[in-house]
Amino acid sequence: MTPSRDDELIFLPLGGAGEIGMNLSCYGYGPPDARKWMVVDCGIFFGRETDTPGVDIIMPDIRFLLENRADLLGIVLTHAHEDHLGAVAYLWPHLKCPVYATPFTARILANKLEERGLAEQLRPRIVPLGSSVSLGPFGVKLVTITHSIPEPNVVIIRTPLGNVVHTGDWKLDPDPLIGEITNDAELCKLGDEGVLVLVCDSTNAHVSGETGSEADVRKSLHDLVGTLKGRVAVTAFASNLARLESIARAGRAHGREIVLVGRSMRQMVQAARDTGYLKGFPSTIEEEESVRLPPHRSLYLVAGSQGEARGALSRIAAGEHPMIAFGPGDAVIFSSRIIPGNELPIFALHNKLAALGVEILTEQDHFVHVSGHPAKEDLTQMYAWVRPRIAIPVHGEMRHMSEHARFAKTLGVAETLIAPNGNMVRLAPGPASIVDEAPSGRLHLDGQILVSEGDGFARARRSLGFAGFVGVTLIMDGKGRMAADPVLHMEGIPDQAREAIADAVSRVSNGKRRGGEELKEEVRRAARRAAQDAWGKKPIVRVETVEV
Amino acid sequence: MTPSRDDELIFLPLGGAGEIGMNLSCYGYGPPDARKWMVVDCGIFFGRETDTPGVDIIMPDIRFLLENRADLLGIVLTHAHEDHLGAVAYLWPHLKCPVYATPFTARILANKLEERGLAEQLRPRIVPLGSSVSLGPFGVKLVTITHSIPEPNVVIIRTPLGNVVHTGDWKLDPDPLIGEITNDAELCKLGDEGVLVLVCDSTNAHVSGETGSEADVRKSLHDLVGTLKGRVAVTAFASNLARLESIARAGRAHGREIVLVGRSMRQMVQAARDTGYLKGFPSTIEEEESVRLPPHRSLYLVAGSQGEARGALSRIAAGEHPMIAFGPGDAVIFSSRIIPGNELPIFALHNKLAALGVEILTEQDHFVHVSGHPAKEDLTQMYAWVRPRIAIPVHGEMRHMSEHARFAKTLGVAETLIAPNGNMVRLAPGPASIVDEAPSGRLHLDGQILVSEGDGFARARRSLGFAGFVGVTLIMDGKGRMAADPVLHMEGIPDQAREAIADAVSRVSNGKRRGGEELKEEVRRAARRAAQDAWGKKPIVRVETVEV
Repeated sequence: MTPSRDDELIFLPLGGAGEIGMNLSCYGYGPPDARKWMVVDCGIFFGRETDTPGVDIIMPDIRFLLENRADLLGIVLTHAHEDHLGAVAYLWPHLKCPVYATPFTARILANKLEERGLAEQLRPRIVPLGSSVSLGPFGVKLVTITHSIPEPNVVIIRTPLGNVVHTGDWKLDPDPLIGEITNDAELCKLGDEGVLVLVCDSTNAHVSGETGSEADVRKSLHDLVGTLKGRVAVTAFASNLARLESIARAGRAHGREIVLVGRSMRQMVQAARDTGYLKGFPSTIEEEESVRLPPHRSLYLVAGSQGEARGALSRIAAGEHPMIAFGPGDAVIFSSRIIPGNELPIFALHNKLAALGVEILTEQDHFVHVSGHPAKEDLTQMYAWVRPRIAIPVHGEMRHMSEHARFAKTLGVAETLIAPNGNMVRLAPGPASIVDEAPSGRLHLDGQILVSEGDGFARARRSLGFAGFVGVTLIMDGKGRMAADPVLHMEGIPDQAREAIADAVSRVSNGKRRGGEELKEEVRRAARRAAQDAWGKKPIVRVETVEV
Repeated sequence: MTPSRDDELIFLPLGGAGEIGMNLSCYGYGPPDARKWMVVDCGIFFGRETDTPGVDIIMPDIRFLLENRADLLGIVLTHAHEDHLGAVAYLWPHLKCPVYATPFTARILANKLEERGLAEQLRPRIVPLGSSVSLGPFGVKLVTITHSIPEPNVVIIRTPLGNVVHTGDWKLDPDPLIGEITNDAELCKLGDEGVLVLVCDSTNAHVSGETGSEADVRKSLHDLVGTLKGRVAVTAFASNLARLESIARAGRAHGREIVLVGRSMRQMVQAARDTGYLKGFPSTIEEEESVRLPPHRSLYLVAGSQGEARGALSRIAAGEHPMIAFGPGDAVIFSSRIIPGNELPIFALHNKLAALGVEILTEQDHFVHVSGHPAKEDLTQMYAWVRPRIAIPVHGEMRHMSEHARFAKTLGVAETLIAPNGNMVRLAPGPASIVDEAPSGRLHLDGQILVSEGDGFARARRSLGFAGFVGVTLIMDGKGRMAADPVLHMEGIPDQAREAIADAVSRVSNGKRRGGEELKEEVRRAARRAAQDAWGKKPIVRVETVEV
């Protein structure tokens, strides 16, 4: 297929470029008036109470895709991590396009669709490992790589204007324990064929050396568990099934029965078994059985490594787990990293465990974790295989993408381009350049409702968090006189300030005739001024008038 | 002096034991009915938006000291860090006791008193380095140690029932660059005399090895600055004056003029000069002068290493500084650690700098920082000098204190005791044991008002942050009939939920007679139920009735 004269190849990140998580990349092909689109990944980001109080899940704003829905050929998922597929179950009802994934990823997605009542409407199209899919002008092939979950894939996109390699999340693990090793031959072959652009994971671009292998952690965990005498709990990311297997094997090797604690643990292990993984995973026992064993005969695989308040580990640390009680002589291994922003809840969890007398072992003091993202040596290898003309760093904050771009230059890549979310990049023809801006942003799952970040509900609540709320109802008669004392609703405001605000509202409204916007604004200002004087903060003040 | 029959020696932490910051330790001596008290340190803790929205400064609840004010002999400050002296300016007006400090610490305190308009009422009593003060039954001596600020002191307290060594914050720095080295002879001598209890810093109890010296960082910073070609900014804790001097000297050595940016930097350097330190600090130039120099001729010493939104560095990163503009080819060195909980604002700062094309150098990738707290080797040395019968870990979260206690046992200490805030420990006579609980907790500086954490204003605001606010005014006539439609105030609530709430309130109140608590509760419940159904969250709902 040769390109038509007006054809362009476009890259447009709507998520995951310039921030952590909620990965969503669009590729467009064709002339401006008849362009076809495909999407790689559709993930969420977990909201932080500080930034977006009351919002647990954040996803990319897909206005651009809605406008181009008729030309959207499909979504291809690289792997099953939440930040790459978690938004499908929320956004697909608006997009209704085919979704392609390898078997394990499809299975995890199916679980999520089931939970949202979408299992009937959307059946993921299963792509066998290493297979191809044709999506209009895009010749898509999934190439096996390694990461920290079964079935991570590099997406190769062949187009008449050049080949794209979109890595997803990856590292080079010579012994990933579960699944195949990286198909470097395929990547090399494509490099020989010619690669226009490498769109690549930046998460660990500032880390020198090689990332390292799950197999090394397996050995270390085996030895570490052997040194422990009491009850042992190990917490890890549930989707890292190689890790779970390592932990379970370490337990069995030292005569411990394995107990899976927490829904996410059990669900992940089941999904892996159903898709043919975890053949070597030891048999497990139920929590009830475990409590009858002596302490040195059990090992608990526990969800909640990030200090999640409702996680099983938090319940154990708080002494609130119905079955499992830890105390002096027992140990908890955190076989995971701290996701930035989770430090305080995780340390709070450590403190609770410490107060119980439990020993805490983490990657700070023991070799119990290895990252799933490419350090500099891994990146060097990837660039050597693929030899792209253009490097576009994605999957990371600006500090990561910036370091990645700097590093790619040292590897001899001709062009590097940082395109934060919403920047439309023309990859070909001509040099890569940002040619347009697409609507982008964030959607908040606020309670059960999807709202645009721009609607400002979370922002308004953050303001409430800072200085509370004052609502004033002014009740007037038909002649514009006050028919009753003003009614005040105040929340989150210290008593001294409350009194000052109430006085100010009374004073300003007292004896006033004529309501209207002017009086409302006068009352509002007086209340805020009084709060500022008495308290040093200005709450949000809303004034309503009503006529009786 | 020999102890009377009923005399007891008491230790009571009101802050700093089981959490970071706001250090305040009480020592009591005498029979229960005539006990005298002294306090070591009186610090603040910086509130986090997540936990206590709208509260920047938190300090210990001093109800216990207010109840015993007549017997409070004084406050002794170990050093000038905010978490050891920051609360004096807020709490002293309630305590009105003498405050003792060495010259630099007294000078920093005086600055704070000046800002709060207390300079006339409280004049700190200056204790020369290495001197003694007699406080009733307590023979107090300040012994020089090393930390990350000028004039850190160990407080030795001699009592008829035994000697106490209270370390404050410390590490062992063989070459602290500013001030004296640790007076180990004095500590050893007291060890020979006999030490009942060592109350000791736990912050780095989980870190193996020695903490290391400021002198090593000086050399490394010198070399690093020499490799940089463009503008250089270095951010560090302003109170680490040895570090500031190292940075300034590194700049001068490479032909750069030094510019102090930010009020805290200038204030600290001035305070140090006024008390005889920083003799070797290079002369500085003003921001205005610096901008006329070529990039490689200036070095900016900038406050705001923790990503403080109003810090000078944040303004530079946002491109909002009136004088200083950084860009490609320039570099920022973070000669500091990340205080846990500050990761996100600091990374946001990095991202902004990266977006400007600025190179970022941190302790992750270069040797630009050393801690001020004792690692295991430092602790081992201290225990060897002091040889206490009892070890009481303080200054740290439970996870730190717990590790410290475990480690002290391995050093052969006979008794270790963890006493979180509010636990009253009898140190003598008899074995150390918790004998009582004193009122304890936290005070919030909420705006300009000191409120008790228990009053729940910050907690209420945190709830507002989660699910917003609904205020309902029901207006009734004299016969208990609705005289107008209900008036609603809603904030932080998505539109769909607002409509559902308004409908529910109308439905429930419509045509109702009789107001009273029952109707209010019915309306409240209906509003929350409607929100839950439409939105999945239950806002705070307040209902008021008014009669016209």
